[in-house]
Amino acid sequence: MAKKIVIIGGVAGGASTAARLRRMDEQAEIIILEKGEHISFANCGLPYHIGDVIPEREKLLVQTPEAMKARFKIDVRIKNEALKINRQQKTLDIKDLATGETYQESYDKLVLSPGARPIKPPLPGLDFDQVFTLRNIPDTDQIKNYLDQHKPDRAVVVGGGFIGLEMAENLHERGLEVSLVEMMDQLMGALDYEMAAQLHNHLRTKGIDLQLGDGITGVEEAGSRKLVNLQSGKSIKTDLVILAIGVKPNTELAAQANLEIGPTGGIKVNEYLQTSDPDIYAIGDAIEVKDFVSENPTMVPLAGPANKQGRIVADNISGRQEKYQGTQGTAIAKAFDLAVASTGLAEKKLQELGIDYHTVHINSNNHAGYYPGAVPMFIKLLFSPEGTVLGAQIVGYEGVDKRIDIFATAVRHKFSIYDLQELELAYAPPYGSAKDPVNMVGFAAGNLLQGEVENTYWQELEDIDPVKTVLLDVREEVETQLGVIKNSINIPLNELRDRLVELDQDKEYISYCAVGLRGYIAARILSQHGFKVSNLSGGYKLYKAVKD
Amino acid sequence: MAKKIVIIGGVAGGASTAARLRRMDEQAEIIILEKGEHISFANCGLPYHIGDVIPEREKLLVQTPEAMKARFKIDVRIKNEALKINRQQKTLDIKDLATGETYQESYDKLVLSPGARPIKPPLPGLDFDQVFTLRNIPDTDQIKNYLDQHKPDRAVVVGGGFIGLEMAENLHERGLEVSLVEMMDQLMGALDYEMAAQLHNHLRTKGIDLQLGDGITGVEEAGSRKLVNLQSGKSIKTDLVILAIGVKPNTELAAQANLEIGPTGGIKVNEYLQTSDPDIYAIGDAIEVKDFVSENPTMVPLAGPANKQGRIVADNISGRQEKYQGTQGTAIAKAFDLAVASTGLAEKKLQELGIDYHTVHINSNNHAGYYPGAVPMFIKLLFSPEGTVLGAQIVGYEGVDKRIDIFATAVRHKFSIYDLQELELAYAPPYGSAKDPVNMVGFAAGNLLQGEVENTYWQELEDIDPVKTVLLDVREEVETQLGVIKNSINIPLNELRDRLVELDQDKEYISYCAVGLRGYIAARILSQHGFKVSNLSGGYKLYKAVKD
Ligand SMILES: Cc1cc2nc3c(=O)[nH]c(=O)nc-3n(C[C@H](O)[C@H](O)[C@H](O)COP(=O)(O)OP(=O)(O)OC[C@H]3O[C@@H](n4cnc5c(N)ncnc54)[C@H](O)[C@@H]3O)c2cc1C
Ligand SMILES: Cc1cc2nc3c(=O)[nH]c(=O)nc-3n(C[C@H](O)[C@H](O)[C@H](O)COP(=O)(O)OP(=O)(O)OC[C@H]3O[C@@H](n4cnc5c(N)ncnc54)[C@H](O)[C@@H]3O)c2cc1C
Ligand SMILES: CC(C)(COP(=O)(O)OP(=O)(O)OC[C@H]1O[C@@H](n2cnc3c(N)ncnc32)[C@H](O)[C@@H]1OP(=O)(O)O)[C@@H](O)C(=O)NCCC(=O)NCCS
Ligand SMILES: CC(C)(COP(=O)(O)OP(=O)(O)OC[C@H]1O[C@@H](n2cnc3c(N)ncnc32)[C@H](O)[C@@H]1OP(=O)(O)O)[C@@H](O)C(=O)NCCC(=O)NCCS
Repeated sequence: MAKKIVIIGGVAGGASTAARLRRMDEQAEIIILEKGEHISFANCGLPYHIGDVIPEREKLLVQTPEAMKARFKIDVRIKNEALKINRQQKTLDIKDLATGETYQESYDKLVLSPGARPIKPPLPGLDFDQVFTLRNIPDTDQIKNYLDQHKPDRAVVVGGGFIGLEMAENLHERGLEVSLVEMMDQLMGALDYEMAAQLHNHLRTKGIDLQLGDGITGVEEAGSRKLVNLQSGKSIKTDLVILAIGVKPNTELAAQANLEIGPTGGIKVNEYLQTSDPDIYAIGDAIEVKDFVSENPTMVPLAGPANKQGRIVADNISGRQEKYQGTQGTAIAKAFDLAVASTGLAEKKLQELGIDYHTVHINSNNHAGYYPGAVPMFIKLLFSPEGTVLGAQIVGYEGVDKRIDIFATAVRHKFSIYDLQELELAYAPPYGSAKDPVNMVGFAAGNLLQGEVENTYWQELEDIDPVKTVLLDVREEVETQLGVIKNSINIPLNELRDRLVELDQDKEYISYCAVGLRGYIAARILSQHGFKVSNLSGGYKLYKAVKD
Repeated sequence: MAKKIVIIGGVAGGASTAARLRRMDEQAEIIILEKGEHISFANCGLPYHIGDVIPEREKLLVQTPEAMKARFKIDVRIKNEALKINRQQKTLDIKDLATGETYQESYDKLVLSPGARPIKPPLPGLDFDQVFTLRNIPDTDQIKNYLDQHKPDRAVVVGGGFIGLEMAENLHERGLEVSLVEMMDQLMGALDYEMAAQLHNHLRTKGIDLQLGDGITGVEEAGSRKLVNLQSGKSIKTDLVILAIGVKPNTELAAQANLEIGPTGGIKVNEYLQTSDPDIYAIGDAIEVKDFVSENPTMVPLAGPANKQGRIVADNISGRQEKYQGTQGTAIAKAFDLAVASTGLAEKKLQELGIDYHTVHINSNNHAGYYPGAVPMFIKLLFSPEGTVLGAQIVGYEGVDKRIDIFATAVRHKFSIYDLQELELAYAPPYGSAKDPVNMVGFAAGNLLQGEVENTYWQELEDIDPVKTVLLDVREEVETQLGVIKNSINIPLNELRDRLVELDQDKEYISYCAVGLRGYIAARILSQHGFKVSNLSGGYKLYKAVKD
């Protein structure tokens, strides 16, 4: 007899499950319940529709219920909300939101992909019409209509994750003055501070007003406008507010049915993505996953994992035994001309978990420097004392997506830094370098691990004792006009061998250049001449990014 | 006592060796012998300087002898040609080309990085001043001066490898009419025919005259011009000829010193890159390497391997024991708006070697289709019956370099196609898709391997028996106006389930759509309804690329 599968939620996870299920099983009865009006929409495109980068609204609708039915023979019921799972009877209570009627539907297998919803803290004024959250098409329509009709001048975006970032950019591109408020001292929490600092500087250059380390306490009327009040006591006049401070998994249905909820608050699943009831699977933003690197439970509300989990669940329902191996949190966001990306664990996370690690920073061009359009990117690599790649972060203009994917692959397959050195990547001048930035990071990491060089990090500069330690700037003299680190002396690298007499064997030296390359060479020279020396990782450019 | 290392050849391999050597060993005496006038120049940028894409000649000179000396304390002797290796005495006979004098130099370790030279077959007329090869700066100057002074109208480029391709593009961009002559029936020999066919069509669209499957027999005078004669009997009038039919390794010095030469004609080295004399290392275009996938000896004259080999040799001379793991031939070339790339083994190579394989073709956008600027790329994946990735080829507009690097990584680490499915790559609309093309290829390969679908390939369409086999076009009717495969019937995918009665269980079906996705879904539907069916890999678009 044909299996009957009911899927709750018809977007990233749910629609992917349904499509693959049908391909695997032509006979199954497949029902999608979606409480909203749309299925299969491009959540990730919503900010860009608001910003008119994607002007055509219909482009956001990747599939419609009709098309899903025609192609995949799927019974798509929009405006149908699952109210209750009756596990004993294997039925659902469902409300048809159009008619208001409630009915029951049975299932052999149930798939939960109900997603998550924007967090709205219980603060005064968040119910004003001008305070928006963004999750689906109606939210998008509301914001876009508001912009089109009221032509507002000012917006406050609360929350510095990727949705906040994308909204800040898209509103700014529509001509609004934008303030971005973030409780932490940095945007994009998955990045370490010095990497985020580069993003902060870029946003400021573009004219975004950043309010970091400050949370909102509420919104109030202020004449024809609103006033967003901050913990610091500041307040910002605005026409609209976008709340993008994170999402909360939709676990109510599952909890009510006594399905296990994990410690992080998501629905708990095993490696086959089964909940504590083996006939009920759960995927997407609503579930807790295993962090691929630390193996700790975590939540990673991203589309890639949701879509892939959907396919795995479809396969498992169709009789296979596929495991989901965990989520490593690979992510990327565009911020004007910049791309910021990360994969695996950040330094702060490693510290939090008490995992030993090393780190290097590299600044390399996206492709051969002599070919037009070469632009630099900063890469930060984190690796274990044994050399296993634990995580990477990149901030740059072009080619960031390419390198983060290789690091994501490296994290996935537990590559060592020596593996990075050896990767044979494609090189022609428009695309890369004979030694790709990925190789280069491997080299720098290898040098650190094999003791060819010691690194000093920007955080450590605060604590150095100027009596014991000398900062040695090995840039050309003209470069010092761009700024120097306080108390440093300048000996250009190419003069270093001839001027060793000027140095003191009893002191410790920290060499630095613009990005770390010449500083490294200087360190090699000095250490072989018997000096105690370390190289400032990331050089002056990274140091300055943090200080700016 | 300080080691004395002499390096023959001061460009990609040689200069990289020297720089790393100095960093590892401040005391060593390091001499570079370079018979030309320049060291460390950007070979790979030469065509783009000729095309004025890189207008500044000095940008091609990545390092000068003076800078190399200042930074790395290296004794760089340009216009010094090594004439003979005296292995017994561990000395070299060297000719100072400026003075004409010959002298000797001793070495503790010798590194050979003499590169390769363009092949010039013994055909009539190849000594005309208007027949050029391109390897170094003087070659570049000659070609560029000729173009600047004579403002020629027509060029013939002989050889369809990446240098030929780059020269054809750059000459065309300078306003010349360009014919590209290639003896094989396709350009870019590392690609399989159907992938190269897409390149052919693109070049023709751009106005390049392609003469494939035709070799030159010679060049003769024709009034103020030259006539290039072809084997087919055709001849082409031209103002200049660029010969780019491949390179020959510079092995004479090594051979004369009785160092072992491998079966492919390159200097034989062990995994530490030592020649048959352990005090002599060899790297770069001059050596034979192990093909990483097949483990057969081969020659891969590319800059990435040369530079990395240089670093390994420097490390080994400094006392480490690093192995070179072989070369997989990862390569990419720009051809106008197109990028063509490959890694690992091609289908034809697998056939030649008698290695069992499967293949799938995928056509996916570089990033989310709803975000502006999405453009498709064709990916071909080759994998073993056990699922190990053996090679990949890509032709497309954007994002080709990114995906080939992931496939290169997959080949390097012997990933299975299931590993490709699981890779967690970075997704935001401007950069990728929730299921990246790399994942998608993994899915399609998995479906083939697990028997969910059978594929038919473009080559097989010739041989089908129309009585037994029906071509089933599942595109929308309007799409058939773009052309159809002869003798096919059209049932749009979304009508297929309702029109199964029109089909005949006794026939075999080959379903096809534009690129293979809908054809695959059709095949799933038909096979589950008891029909014999296979899907045309790559669909009509790939088929048409071959037929055009
Ligand atoms: C503005 C925005 C931008 C984003 N950008 C990116 C990006 O660039 N990259 C990236 O990787 N991810 C991005 N995401 C995240 C990504 O969209 C989600 O991770 C993904 O959609 C999660 O899939 P899901 O199936 O779990 O949930 P959803 O796609 O949200 O689908 C859940 C559906 O279930 C329905 N539902 C819930 N409860 C019920 C019920 N009881 N009965 C019936 N239906 C129900 C909901 O109405 C909803 O439509 C973005 C998200 C947003 C909002
Ligand atoms: C036009 C062009 C474009 C290219 N584009 C790319 C590309 O996009 N991507 C890519 O990966 N590769 C590319 N390559 C290939 C790449 O440049 C080579 O693989 C690389 O330079 C090989 O390094 P090598 O050290 O072996 O030889 P080379 O870099 O050629 O250096 C060898 C040097 O040795 C000197 N020499 C030889 N014999 C002696 C002697 N007896 N005494 C003293 N000196 C001697 C030569 O004068 C020469 O300068 C390109 C090459 C060319 C010519
Ligand atoms: C639209 C949606 C239902 C599509 O699901 P889908 O059918 O699984 O995905 P695609 O259309 O990309 O097709 C992929 C299938 O085609 C196959 N395929 C793709 N190209 C192919 C080709 N050239 N030849 C053969 N097969 C091919 C793949 O193998 C895969 O099939 P499989 O899963 O059975 O192996 C789902 O992705 C969705 O709802 N997306 C929008 C919501 C969303 O994801 N939001 C978050 C991101 S904005
Ligand atoms: C110019 C040339 C001599 C440079 O060689 P190089 O000094 O080894 O290369 P780079 O300048 O890129 O520096 C790389 C070194 O800096 C280190 N490095 C780079 N960025 C760093 C950073 N931010 N912090 C610390 N170290 C860094 C790397 O680890 C590497 O050192 P290592 O090999 O000791 O580990 C050589 O590449 C060359 O001749 N190129 C032109 C010829 C050529 O390659 N042609 C073919 C391609 S067109």
